[in-house]
Amino acid sequence: MAKTYFPNVSNVPFVGTKELKSGLGYHYYNADEVVGGKKMRDWLKFSVAYWHTFGQELNDIFGDGTAIRPWHGLTGMDLAKARVEASFEFFQKMGVDYYCFHDRDVAPEGLTLHETNKNLDEITDMFVDYQKQTGMKVLWNTANMFTNPRFVSGAASSPFAEVFAYAAAQVKHGLDTAKKVGAENYVFWGGREGYESLLNTDMKREQEHLAKFFHMAADYAKEIGYEGQLLLEPKPKEPMMHQYDFDAATTIAFMKTYGLEGTYKLNLEGNHANLAGHTYQHEIRTAREAGLLGSLDANQGDKLIGWDIDEFPSDLYEATLAMYEVVENGGLGNGGLNFDAKPRRSSFTVEDMFYGHIVGMDTFAAGLKVALRLKEDRVFEGFVADRYASFDSGIGADVESGKATFETLNDYIIDKPQSELLAATKSGRIEELKDTLNHYIIDTLK
Amino acid sequence: MAKTYFPNVSNVPFVGTKELKSGLGYHYYNADEVVGGKKMRDWLKFSVAYWHTFGQELNDIFGDGTAIRPWHGLTGMDLAKARVEASFEFFQKMGVDYYCFHDRDVAPEGLTLHETNKNLDEITDMFVDYQKQTGMKVLWNTANMFTNPRFVSGAASSPFAEVFAYAAAQVKHGLDTAKKVGAENYVFWGGREGYESLLNTDMKREQEHLAKFFHMAADYAKEIGYEGQLLLEPKPKEPMMHQYDFDAATTIAFMKTYGLEGTYKLNLEGNHANLAGHTYQHEIRTAREAGLLGSLDANQGDKLIGWDIDEFPSDLYEATLAMYEVVENGGLGNGGLNFDAKPRRSSFTVEDMFYGHIVGMDTFAAGLKVALRLKEDRVFEGFVADRYASFDSGIGADVESGKATFETLNDYIIDKPQSELLAATKSGRIEELKDTLNHYIIDTLK
Amino acid sequence: MAKTYFPNVSNVPFVGTKELKSGLGYHYYNADEVVGGKKMRDWLKFSVAYWHTFGQELNDIFGDGTAIRPWHGLTGMDLAKARVEASFEFFQKMGVDYYCFHDRDVAPEGLTLHETNKNLDEITDMFVDYQKQTGMKVLWNTANMFTNPRFVSGAASSPFAEVFAYAAAQVKHGLDTAKKVGAENYVFWGGREGYESLLNTDMKREQEHLAKFFHMAADYAKEIGYEGQLLLEPKPKEPMMHQYDFDAATTIAFMKTYGLEGTYKLNLEGNHANLAGHTYQHEIRTAREAGLLGSLDANQGDKLIGWDIDEFPSDLYEATLAMYEVVENGGLGNGGLNFDAKPRRSSFTVEDMFYGHIVGMDTFAAGLKVALRLKEDRVFEGFVADRYASFDSGIGADVESGKATFETLNDYIIDKPQSELLAATKSGRIEELKDTLNHYIIDTLK
Amino acid sequence: MAKTYFPNVSNVPFVGTKELKSGLGYHYYNADEVVGGKKMRDWLKFSVAYWHTFGQELNDIFGDGTAIRPWHGLTGMDLAKARVEASFEFFQKMGVDYYCFHDRDVAPEGLTLHETNKNLDEITDMFVDYQKQTGMKVLWNTANMFTNPRFVSGAASSPFAEVFAYAAAQVKHGLDTAKKVGAENYVFWGGREGYESLLNTDMKREQEHLAKFFHMAADYAKEIGYEGQLLLEPKPKEPMMHQYDFDAATTIAFMKTYGLEGTYKLNLEGNHANLAGHTYQHEIRTAREAGLLGSLDANQGDKLIGWDIDEFPSDLYEATLAMYEVVENGGLGNGGLNFDAKPRRSSFTVEDMFYGHIVGMDTFAAGLKVALRLKEDRVFEGFVADRYASFDSGIGADVESGKATFETLNDYIIDKPQSELLAATKSGRIEELKDTLNHYIIDTLK
Repeated sequence: MAKTYFPNVSNVPFVGTKELKSGLGYHYYNADEVVGGKKMRDWLKFSVAYWHTFGQELNDIFGDGTAIRPWHGLTGMDLAKARVEASFEFFQKMGVDYYCFHDRDVAPEGLTLHETNKNLDEITDMFVDYQKQTGMKVLWNTANMFTNPRFVSGAASSPFAEVFAYAAAQVKHGLDTAKKVGAENYVFWGGREGYESLLNTDMKREQEHLAKFFHMAADYAKEIGYEGQLLLEPKPKEPMMHQYDFDAATTIAFMKTYGLEGTYKLNLEGNHANLAGHTYQHEIRTAREAGLLGSLDANQGDKLIGWDIDEFPSDLYEATLAMYEVVENGGLGNGGLNFDAKPRRSSFTVEDMFYGHIVGMDTFAAGLKVALRLKEDRVFEGFVADRYASFDSGIGADVESGKATFETLNDYIIDKPQSELLAATKSGRIEELKDTLNHYIIDTLK
Repeated sequence: MAKTYFPNVSNVPFVGTKELKSGLGYHYYNADEVVGGKKMRDWLKFSVAYWHTFGQELNDIFGDGTAIRPWHGLTGMDLAKARVEASFEFFQKMGVDYYCFHDRDVAPEGLTLHETNKNLDEITDMFVDYQKQTGMKVLWNTANMFTNPRFVSGAASSPFAEVFAYAAAQVKHGLDTAKKVGAENYVFWGGREGYESLLNTDMKREQEHLAKFFHMAADYAKEIGYEGQLLLEPKPKEPMMHQYDFDAATTIAFMKTYGLEGTYKLNLEGNHANLAGHTYQHEIRTAREAGLLGSLDANQGDKLIGWDIDEFPSDLYEATLAMYEVVENGGLGNGGLNFDAKPRRSSFTVEDMFYGHIVGMDTFAAGLKVALRLKEDRVFEGFVADRYASFDSGIGADVESGKATFETLNDYIIDKPQSELLAATKSGRIEELKDTLNHYIIDTLK
Repeated sequence: MAKTYFPNVSNVPFVGTKELKSGLGYHYYNADEVVGGKKMRDWLKFSVAYWHTFGQELNDIFGDGTAIRPWHGLTGMDLAKARVEASFEFFQKMGVDYYCFHDRDVAPEGLTLHETNKNLDEITDMFVDYQKQTGMKVLWNTANMFTNPRFVSGAASSPFAEVFAYAAAQVKHGLDTAKKVGAENYVFWGGREGYESLLNTDMKREQEHLAKFFHMAADYAKEIGYEGQLLLEPKPKEPMMHQYDFDAATTIAFMKTYGLEGTYKLNLEGNHANLAGHTYQHEIRTAREAGLLGSLDANQGDKLIGWDIDEFPSDLYEATLAMYEVVENGGLGNGGLNFDAKPRRSSFTVEDMFYGHIVGMDTFAAGLKVALRLKEDRVFEGFVADRYASFDSGIGADVESGKATFETLNDYIIDKPQSELLAATKSGRIEELKDTLNHYIIDTLK
Repeated sequence: MAKTYFPNVSNVPFVGTKELKSGLGYHYYNADEVVGGKKMRDWLKFSVAYWHTFGQELNDIFGDGTAIRPWHGLTGMDLAKARVEASFEFFQKMGVDYYCFHDRDVAPEGLTLHETNKNLDEITDMFVDYQKQTGMKVLWNTANMFTNPRFVSGAASSPFAEVFAYAAAQVKHGLDTAKKVGAENYVFWGGREGYESLLNTDMKREQEHLAKFFHMAADYAKEIGYEGQLLLEPKPKEPMMHQYDFDAATTIAFMKTYGLEGTYKLNLEGNHANLAGHTYQHEIRTAREAGLLGSLDANQGDKLIGWDIDEFPSDLYEATLAMYEVVENGGLGNGGLNFDAKPRRSSFTVEDMFYGHIVGMDTFAAGLKVALRLKEDRVFEGFVADRYASFDSGIGADVESGKATFETLNDYIIDKPQSELLAATKSGRIEELKDTLNHYIIDTLK
C-alpha cells in the first residue's frame, strides 16, 4: 500500500464519543467492548460490500454515475488493482474486520471464462496477501450472474443450456476462490433466476434446473473440502418481474421441495424484506425459527418506494429488532452483517463513503445494545411467556404433547358458556409495548 | 319454497346470446355445451358464496350496510330459514350447480357450542332436503373462526388454550357437516391465524399449534370416513398484519415443514394473490406445479387498492390465464370456482346480486373458451417447448438426467468465446405474445 | 360526574419520570413545562378523538367489536349520556385539554333530521356544562356524512340532490354546534366524496357541487359569526376507490380551482399521508409552504399495510419531523394534535385506552423536544442555507429577482467547460444527516 | 437513405387483417380509415420515441444492455447519423407519422454547451431534410436534464445556480430546435426536479425557481414566435424519492400557484399514473376536466411492480378507457400518442422493435374503435345523465344555479323521514357496466 487513496481521512476516530454535530464517528460501536458475553466485533462482524463501495458509480436508470473516486482514470487490470489497494486502506480506516465480493466486481472479464478466471486469480492473490498483512477476512464471496447479457433470462434457470453450463463453471471457480481466500460463507443471489412473463416460461423446468445446480454446487464444495456455509439470498422482484427466491418462506419451500435444507441457509436483506411486503424482523425470525438463519445484508429500504434502494441502515427500530433476533439466535455463527448499501447518488464524495458506513455501524451497534438490554430484562420474553401460559398445563399441555384430539377437546368445551371463552383471552398490549421499546432505546443509548 | 323472494327475476335467460347493451345475460356460459371434451358446467363448477350473497349487508369499515334484501325484518332462526329458501331460489334462477358456506353464515350462535351446533343442524337438514329436490351440491363448507371476539388473536394459533379447544370442536362439527351435506371439499381460511405484532408473538409456538390442529382435523376426517378434499386458503394480510398462510409458496413451506402436503391442497383466490404481490396465474401455477391445486375462489382485486375488495371477476385477461392453468391441470377434480365476491356497496339492489354473478360467469366462461383455444393451437406451449429445446439433448440433457457435474460443464465451456454464449440466447418475444393473446381473446369470443 | 367509570385508573401520574418497564406514564410530556418559549400544552394541544375512544367497538371488516367498556349494556340516549360522563373523566385523568367529535358519535339519529338535531343538542348542552366545570375545550367538531347508507355515493358530491340537501342541513347544524361549544376549528372529511368507478361518475359535476357546498358552508359560518378555522382533511382512498381530497397538493389544486384557499386550511393525518404515497412530513411541509397548515391528526400507519389502521403514534422519527414542521410554522395557531387513533383490536381493555394515549403523548412530546433542539442548533437549517447559497448572489440572485432571462443565462454558461459545471454541485450528505438525527434524538431525550 | 438497416423487414403489412398466430400486423389500425368523423391517423397521431427505439440498450440497474442493433460498432457523430438514417427507415416501415426526441438522444455532448449545440444542429439539419422527403413530423421534442451528473440534484430546481443557468440555456436551444423542426409541442419532464430527502431540501425555494424557469421558457417561446404547445409531464417518483410534478392534480396545483395554467398543458403517461396510485383514465380525465389535456405517452406499467417499466401498451381495457377520454375531449389537438416504451430486456432483437410498436398501435387502434362505439351508443353517458338527473330540476337545479343556501336546503329537508332519503339513492350498477364493457370490446373488434 504505497499510495494513499484517502489522504484526508485518518482512521475514523470517534469511537465511543457522543458529541453532537460531529456526524463523523460511530458512537455506539466499540469493537473490543464486551457486551452480552462477546466482543461487539464478534456479535456484529461488519463487512464492507466491495461492489457498492469500490465498484458503484452511483448511476441510476435515468442517470450516469456521479461518484468521485481516487481511482478514476484507470481501466482494466490497473483499475482492478488500484481498487484492491484502496479497499484495504478503507477497511483499515473504518475499523471493520470483513469484506464481501462478487467475482465480476474485482476483476474484468476476458474473452473466455478461462481468461476471466485468470484475471480473477491475479486479484485474489493480492487479497490473500493483503489479508495476511492486515488480518482482514472474507465474510462471503459470490458470483455475479446477472449483469452480463448472457444471463438475460437467468443463469441456472436460463432456458439455454449453454448459459447453464457457463454458470456452473463460474460458480465452480467461485467455490475454488472461496476456499482460497478463506470465505466463511458462499452466497447465491439469483438476480435473474425468475421470470419476466409466465406466457413464455416453464417455471417447473426452470426450478428443477435451479435445484440441480444447487446440488451440484454442494457436491463440488464437498469434493474440494470447502467448509464455509452455503447461503441463498431471497428477493421478490427486480430485476425480474418475479424471482423464485421471493422471500424466506418461499425459499424454504423450494429448499424442502428439492432436498436442500440440510446444506443451505439464508442470507437476508432488509430492503428485500420490504419489497416482499415484510418487515426485516419477520424475515429474520422466519429463518431463525426454521434453523436456517445464515447471515444478514444490513441495509434499509424506503417502504414508500417500490424499488431496491440499498440505503445504509439508519433506523434504530429496525436495527434493534433485527439484532433482537440475532441475540435470540445466540449470534450468527459463520454469518455477519454485510453492508449491501450505497450512498445516495447525491452523496458522491469520498467522504460519503465513510459517512455511509459510519451511520450503518453506529445504528447496528446501537441496536445490539438495546436488544441485549431488552433480552436481559426479559421485556418481550416475559410478556410472551405469560401470554401463552395456558399451553403450559391442562388442556393446553395436552395439545402440545399430542394427547388431545378433536373428540377430547370437543368434550371439554361443548357446554361452556360463550362468556367463559371470552374471559380466557387477554389484551396483547401492543401500545404499551411500543412505548416501552421507545424508552429502552433512549435509556440504553443515553 | 312456497314464497318467492325474487319475483321480478325469472330464470336468467340470455345464455348464449350476444346482443349488446343487454347487460343481463352470461353470454359465454352455456352449461351443457361440450368444450375441450367436457361440459362447461363440469369445467367450471360455479358456486355461490352463501356469506356474500345471503349474509353480506354491504357495510364497510366506514359505513353501515346498504343492501336491500327481501328477508330484511326477520331475525334469528327465522332469518336463517328465510335465507335458505331464498338461496335455493337464487341458485336455480342463476343456473349454478354448487354453493359454499361457513357455519356461522347459515345459523346463529347459541349460548354454548352445543346450542350453536343444534341451530346449524336444523339449517343443514333443510340444505339436505333442498339439495335432494334441486340437485344442488356443496362445493365446500368451512368454519368461521374470525368474526367472534374470542378469536381476536387467532383460533388454532390463539395464545389461549380454551380458544384452541373451541376451534377444534367447531371444526369437528364442520367435518361432520361436510359429510352430512356431501361437501366435495372442506376449507380452512385462517383469517386470524397470524400476528398483529411480533413484539408479543411466539410465532413458532403458534405455527406448531396450527400444524397439530390440521393433523387432528385430518385424523378426525379419516375417522368419520369423510372423503372430501381438505384445503388451505392463503392470504397475506388483513385482518391480521401478517397471516401465516401468506401465499401458495409460504403455505407449501408450512405444509412441508409439518408433513401436511399429502393430505391438504390449496384453495386460491384472485384478490389474495394480488395482496401478496402476485398475479392470480402465478399462484395457480405455483400450486399446480407442486401438485397441490385444489379449488379456486373466483374474484378479483384492484391492484391499486391495498385491501380485500372481493369484486366479481370481470377481467378477461385474468380469467383466461387462470383457466389456462386449470386446463393445463386437466380440470380441478373436486375443486370448482366459488364466487367469493360481493357487489359494490353502491350496487345495493336485488338485481345487482344477479348482475354480479352474471359478469363472473360470463367472464370465466369466456376465459375457458379462450384458454382451450390457446391450448389447442399450442400457442404458448409450442413457443415454450422451442425456447427450452437446448435441454432436450446434448449438454442440456446431461444436466436434466443428472450426468453433468460442475467439472464436466466447466470443461465444456471454459474456452468458448463469450460471443458464442450470447448467440445461444433467444428473444423471449413478450410483446408478440401479448398481441397474440389479444387476438385470441377477440377471435375466440367474437 | 357522580359515577366513576375508570375506578382502577387514578390520574395518569408518571409525568416527567423516566423509569423503565413502567409502560404507564408519558415521560416526555409535562404540560406546563416551557420549551421553545411556550408551554408544552400550547405547542401540542393534545385532543382525544371522541369516536375512537368512546364510540369505537374495535370491530374490523372480518370481525365483531372486542372492546370492553364500562358503558356496555346501555342504549340510545342513556348510552350517549354515559359516554359524555365517562369522556370527561377520561380527559381529566389523561391530562389533555381538548377533544374532537362528529355529530353522530355523540348522539343517535332520530326519524328526521329535526329529531336528530334535538338529540345532538341535548348532548352538546352537557358538553357546554362539563367544559365550564373542567376547562376542557373543543379542538374541532365535524359531521359524519359517510356511515349512513344515504351517503353511499357521497354527501356533497352525491349524484342525488336530496342527499346533497340533507348534507347541507347537517353541516348547517354542525356549524351552529361549533359556535355553541366554542370549537376552535370545524373539519370536513369527505369519506364518501370520491368515486368507486369512473364508468358511472361525472367527476366534474361532483366536484362543482362539492365546491358550491364549501362556499355555502363558509357563507353560513360568516352569517352566524362563527370564527373558528374551516379545515379540509385529505385522504386518497378508503372507503372510496378514489377520494377527491387525495392529498395536500390535490386539495390545494381543488381549493385554487374553486376559490376556496382564502377560507379553508388543511387538517393532515399521518396514516392518510402514507396511503397517498407520502411521508407525513411531506404533507405537512406542502401545506406549511402554501400557508395552509391548519391542524394535525396525530396517528400513524404501517407502510407495509394498504388500509387505514389509525394506530396511536409511537415512531420517534415521524413525530420529530412532524413537529419540526410545526416549529418552523411557529406553532399551529387554532390547530392542535388530535389523536385520530384507536387501540389495536387485541388491545381491548380499558387500560389500553390509556396506554394508547400515553404512547401518543409521550412520542409527540419527545418529538417536540428534539425538533426544538434541532432548530435551536440550526442543524438542518444551516446545512440547507449553505447548500442554496449560490442563489444569494450573482447569477443566482438575478434568477430570484427576475432579472435573468434565457438569453442572459445562455450568455453566461454557453462556453463554460462541462467540468466547471460539475464542480458547482455539492454532496447532499444524507447519510451524515441521518446519523446526526439519531444522535439528536438520543441526546435530547436521555 | 442509401443503406438499409432492417433488410429483413418489409413494410409492416398486415393492416386490417385478422388471422391468428400471425403476431405481426396491427390489425385494428388502418391509417386512412375514417372513424368517428376523422382518419385514424388523425385521432391517434402515433409517435415513435427516439430514445427508447434508437438509443435504448435495454440495460437495467442490475444488467448491461442486451439490445442487438444494426448501428452497433459506431460511435460519436457517426453513430448519431446512422441512427437518423435507421430511424426514418423504421418510421416508414411502421407507417407512423410522428416522432419525439430529447436533445441528448440524438447527438452527443461536446466540451461546452456551445459545442453540444453544434452537434445537435447538425443532426436536426438531417431531421429537417428527411422530414421533407418523407412527410414525417415531430410530435414534440424535449431536453434531457436528468442523465448528466450535473443534474444530480435537479435542473431548474437544482440548489446550484450554475446548473440552473445551464438548464436555461439548454431549454433555450431546445425551443429554437422545436421551431426549426416544426415540433407541435415542447415537453418538460422533470426527472430530477424533486427531492431525495426533506432533511436537506428547501422545497419552497426549489419550486419557486422551477416556476420562474417555466415563465422564462414561455417568454422565450413567445419572443421567438414558437407556437407549439408547452407541456408538463407528471410522475410521482423515480429517479427522485419525490418529484414535484407528482400527478395531474399536483401539477395543476403548481400551475395555479405560480400562474402557469394559461400557458402550459399536461403530457400524461400510463405507467406514471399507476406509480402515483391512479388509473391512466383518472389522470386523463383530471386533465380533461381542467381543460389541460395536452398529449399522451402511450405506455403501460405493471401495477404489482413499483418502478417504471415503460412497457408497450397491450391492455385493451386501458386503451379503451384512455381513448374514451380522448373522444370526449374531441381529440387531442396538438397532442398525440407517443410510445414512451421499450421492449423487455429479453426482447433484444431488431424484430422486437417492430413487435413492440405493433402491439401498441394494434391496442390503441382497438381502443379507439371501442370508445367511439361506446360514445355513439351513449352507454356510459346515458347511464350517467340518468344518475345525476335530480340536479336537472327542483332543489338540485337550485344548487347548481347558486340559488340554494344552507337555510333553504335545511328547510327543505329538516322534517323528511329518513326512509325517503334512502329512496332517493340509486344503484351504481358497476357489475352490469363492467359486463357491458366486455361485450362492447368483443363485439366491436370481432
